[in-house]
Amino acid sequence: MAQLEGKIQGVVDAILQDYQLGRDIDRLDMSRQPDKDVIMDMLGKLRRIVFPGYSTEKSYRIYNVQHNLSMLIEDVMYNLTEQLAMVYEGAGEEKAGEKAQQTALAFFATIPQVRALVQTDVQAAYDGDPAAYSKDEIIFSYPGLYAITVYRLAHELYCLGVPMIPRIMTEHAHSITGIDIHPGATIGKNFFIDHGTGIVIGETTIIGENVKIYQGVTLGGLSTRGGQSLKGKRRHPTIEDNVTIYAGASILGGETTIGRECVIGANAFITASVHPFTTVSTKNQQLTFKSRNCPGCEKIDNCWEK
Amino acid sequence: MAQLEGKIQGVVDAILQDYQLGRDIDRLDMSRQPDKDVIMDMLGKLRRIVFPGYSTEKSYRIYNVQHNLSMLIEDVMYNLTEQLAMVYEGAGEEKAGEKAQQTALAFFATIPQVRALVQTDVQAAYDGDPAAYSKDEIIFSYPGLYAITVYRLAHELYCLGVPMIPRIMTEHAHSITGIDIHPGATIGKNFFIDHGTGIVIGETTIIGENVKIYQGVTLGGLSTRGGQSLKGKRRHPTIEDNVTIYAGASILGGETTIGRECVIGANAFITASVHPFTTVSTKNQQLTFKSRNCPGCEKIDNCWEK
Amino acid sequence: MAQLEGKIQGVVDAILQDYQLGRDIDRLDMSRQPDKDVIMDMLGKLRRIVFPGYSTEKSYRIYNVQHNLSMLIEDVMYNLTEQLAMVYEGAGEEKAGEKAQQTALAFFATIPQVRALVQTDVQAAYDGDPAAYSKDEIIFSYPGLYAITVYRLAHELYCLGVPMIPRIMTEHAHSITGIDIHPGATIGKNFFIDHGTGIVIGETTIIGENVKIYQGVTLGGLSTRGGQSLKGKRRHPTIEDNVTIYAGASILGGETTIGRECVIGANAFITASVHPFTTVSTKNQQLTFKSRNCPGCEKIDNCWEK
Repeated sequence: MAQLEGKIQGVVDAILQDYQLGRDIDRLDMSRQPDKDVIMDMLGKLRRIVFPGYSTEKSYRIYNVQHNLSMLIEDVMYNLTEQLAMVYEGAGEEKAGEKAQQTALAFFATIPQVRALVQTDVQAAYDGDPAAYSKDEIIFSYPGLYAITVYRLAHELYCLGVPMIPRIMTEHAHSITGIDIHPGATIGKNFFIDHGTGIVIGETTIIGENVKIYQGVTLGGLSTRGGQSLKGKRRHPTIEDNVTIYAGASILGGETTIGRECVIGANAFITASVHPFTTVSTKNQQLTFKSRNCPGCEKIDNCWEK
Repeated sequence: MAQLEGKIQGVVDAILQDYQLGRDIDRLDMSRQPDKDVIMDMLGKLRRIVFPGYSTEKSYRIYNVQHNLSMLIEDVMYNLTEQLAMVYEGAGEEKAGEKAQQTALAFFATIPQVRALVQTDVQAAYDGDPAAYSKDEIIFSYPGLYAITVYRLAHELYCLGVPMIPRIMTEHAHSITGIDIHPGATIGKNFFIDHGTGIVIGETTIIGENVKIYQGVTLGGLSTRGGQSLKGKRRHPTIEDNVTIYAGASILGGETTIGRECVIGANAFITASVHPFTTVSTKNQQLTFKSRNCPGCEKIDNCWEK
Repeated sequence: MAQLEGKIQGVVDAILQDYQLGRDIDRLDMSRQPDKDVIMDMLGKLRRIVFPGYSTEKSYRIYNVQHNLSMLIEDVMYNLTEQLAMVYEGAGEEKAGEKAQQTALAFFATIPQVRALVQTDVQAAYDGDPAAYSKDEIIFSYPGLYAITVYRLAHELYCLGVPMIPRIMTEHAHSITGIDIHPGATIGKNFFIDHGTGIVIGETTIIGENVKIYQGVTLGGLSTRGGQSLKGKRRHPTIEDNVTIYAGASILGGETTIGRECVIGANAFITASVHPFTTVSTKNQQLTFKSRNCPGCEKIDNCWEK
């Protein structure tokens, strides 16, 4: 038993020693970092602020609505200010606390506008999906609306220059939905995502109004080995108003614009601009059909009738 | 400080005022709505009822099994009845409580049948996957089995005409697994999903027995701009018995039937019916190969031998 | 009311009776099974051991770092040993407890090496992604790094022959990220996954150093109906050093090797080896463009200028 304890101590010592190597992942001093759990909690509360009637928290519903919403907003304001102060301090900002307060106020001032946009997204999902039985169902269960709502909130923080927190928010939504929208993207009203798993929307993408995209669509960069040297440059496409992009299509490159009213067919791979009012489809994929004999019938052709 | 408080109050007021605009998302009166957290908890308990030996809750295992299962079933019955009453009331049903009790009883009566189907799905996963070391591993860790189990439970509620709750259940599974099975789909026994991320199975899909599908497969609608006007119509394909559909294939349209024993190759895009006993493949994709010089060897061909 | 209670009892009895059928899913005796919740908790703590400065748990940061890390390591050691004993016992091993202790010690001895690898993965993500603003952002929010970290930990347990637990770990990461890496795969340093949703890396895959892969890439088996008969055989490809594989490409088969320095284009479908220093692209997909008239302008060509 003493021998075992010795071995455990040896393992502990080896790991503690390994922390001294000075690698990025060895940093032990990150006390001024954002708290992911607090950010996730804040995100949940921000969604309650966006959809005030859809909370499942009972106490919140029973008591005076106005009073509760005030308390909720003050709670998020307090936590957001604290988290902002941490990331600003971490980024070496002076007067981090003051800047955090200003940013938090500026962010909250955008909430009515975010709500106005989200309302159009709910409507777009309802209008566009024959499987939608009610708007409540969309708000309660559609991953596309979840990802868009989180993106719209995170985008406002991104526009205010907040480091890290917007990305933590959208990557959380990515984890929940499989939909990866970078908070830097610009997206107009009436945005509808159907199914959504596998969608990637890059940082410098610009999307107009009334755009509808399906699962597996990539609005991405023309990948190069450029890496960090491309930071801040326009790398992702522009999608104009009223465009529909079907499942699995890839539209790549910062100089690629899909004109208004275009329809982009499933699995199309596009790296150049497309004129407005154009329907793009992949030429019929050539399929080969090889029949096996159906045991129990002589003519293959009859097989289905059996 | 007083100034800051004034600004916060201003933000709170602006948001409270914004709630008065009468948009769908402004509704503050949704007291009779389903409680997503209760539904998620119920789903976890329903899985324990389906797999009674696989619970990780210690107390459940220590005491008398029968007694605990009875308590578990009564717990779910109580909560399901309450949630059903809420959605029925929300949908304007009279005698919502009575209907909720009948539906909950009818749902529980289907559990043995659901369990019989899930048992065949476990077997299909074990038989079909060389990476499966045991059936326990499948039950504990396979996302495909998780999604199928949730679908089979939600489908019974869907068939009983329950609004919203079935979709909340399958969208939860979608979030956990990346596999989006609409509770309205009809799926026969021995269903195996491998890997699964990105799979979409639409509301009116019909799948026979012994079907095997891989990641990224879409059984979807031929998308049109029809939207709500298509509600309730057959929009998704029929897959007959013993069909295998490899990764990334799309099979679309309510009039598309894939005949029994067909094998559909990876990435095939199919919008018309396929005869039984047919192997469909995409014609060999044409690839271009461009060699660069290997620094340090003169002949490209020798490169690998270095 | 008595009638309702009778009906509930009837439902309970029907389910309890159904448990007597002797199916795999009916097993009520699985007391010696791994506890998924404990494994998830352990995984969270293992990530804190890998990234000691990035914990969001406040107490952990406030007190003496060394002391806390020691306690953390001892906690995981204790729980891992217990879980290992359970799976060994479940697998019919004699001296399960002793073997569990040895395995836990052997696993912890690999932690410094795992950390050294993860450090290179962080660096590779930073170098490769123009959207990465800092390494902290990568550690806090990148799903690719999350999946790789969990894989690197689970892989060590897999190499020590531990049943079930490694797969439960990587399937948890699959659920969080949409990235499905089997713990049996072998992956060299500087591994970068961008976006990641839909990636599948099979059990017998071998990946060299400095490899970069994008969302939707499959490194999989040439699917056959072999099922369990293929268990343990090499079924998945080899990817040599410095290879880049763009989104949606599939590379299949145990005899397929992608030579060093290759670049595999988006959506390429590859089932045979590729020479080193080769850029593979799909021949330009043939797209058809069908213009509609723009209401309000006579010449289609002018449409964009309007």
